[in-house]
Amino acid sequence: MGQVNTITVTWSTNGLHFNATDEYGNTTAIDTAIEYGGLDKGFRPAELLLVSLAGCMSMDIVSILQKKGGRITSFKSIIQGHRAEKHPKEYEKIVVTFDCQGDYQQEDLERSFELSRDKYCGVFATLNKPPQIEFKL
Amino acid sequence: MGQVNTITVTWSTNGLHFNATDEYGNTTAIDTAIEYGGLDKGFRPAELLLVSLAGCMSMDIVSILQKKGGRITSFKSIIQGHRAEKHPKEYEKIVVTFDCQGDYQQEDLERSFELSRDKYCGVFATLNKPPQIEFKL
Repeated sequence: MGQVNTITVTWSTNGLHFNATDEYGNTTAIDTAIEYGGLDKGFRPAELLLVSLAGCMSMDIVSILQKKGGRITSFKSIIQGHRAEKHPKEYEKIVVTFDCQGDYQQEDLERSFELSRDKYCGVFATLNKPPQIEFKL
Repeated sequence: MGQVNTITVTWSTNGLHFNATDEYGNTTAIDTAIEYGGLDKGFRPAELLLVSLAGCMSMDIVSILQKKGGRITSFKSIIQGHRAEKHPKEYEKIVVTFDCQGDYQQEDLERSFELSRDKYCGVFATLNKPPQIEFKL
């Protein structure tokens, strides 16, 4: 086995507002809509799964394309998660659109994307091969 | 199909620092270690997958347990993601530990957890049933 990542998620005791903390001291708020009992002051948990995938691949692509000599002036990913109609409303389909501007070869962008998808992006790989998930209550 | 969630991830043009924005105006930084070209000022993308799962289930459990009459004084989840040794370093195993303090029936906590796992948590369901993922470049 490789590295172990550890995250702590703590309830704020107010509504359904939580705070997540990583091993490096970063924090981010998690929340939900007021109609569901939240304070509406943070990302919805399910949407962070989309942030995770788009962030992982975007980081790979920018990094690899720059190593190939590409000069990127702007880079943006739009990720859309289509949820099932019924509970648990899982993501049935996810569509990621990458928008890269700058001075680079199109084939280098395509190769950078493929390397992320097929070799480097651990989030994409996890979504394709269900991990073993254990709980302690 | 049900709801569509849309997230935008934008490169800051500095290192590998990105910003994610949801439909409601929330933003969060995504980054990586300085040794990998990041600024080390934000969550690692892969760790946000852990935040997503722990956040989703924690929110369900607190919400359901309260509806069952439980009085929760503190609630914390610790989630550990064990990554594969080789690229793409996917999560092979995830262990979630819930710590709930307060005045409640243990069987109500267990039932709240089971309802999240088996019925409500869309993140857990997505991790167990690979979504269709499409890309536009």
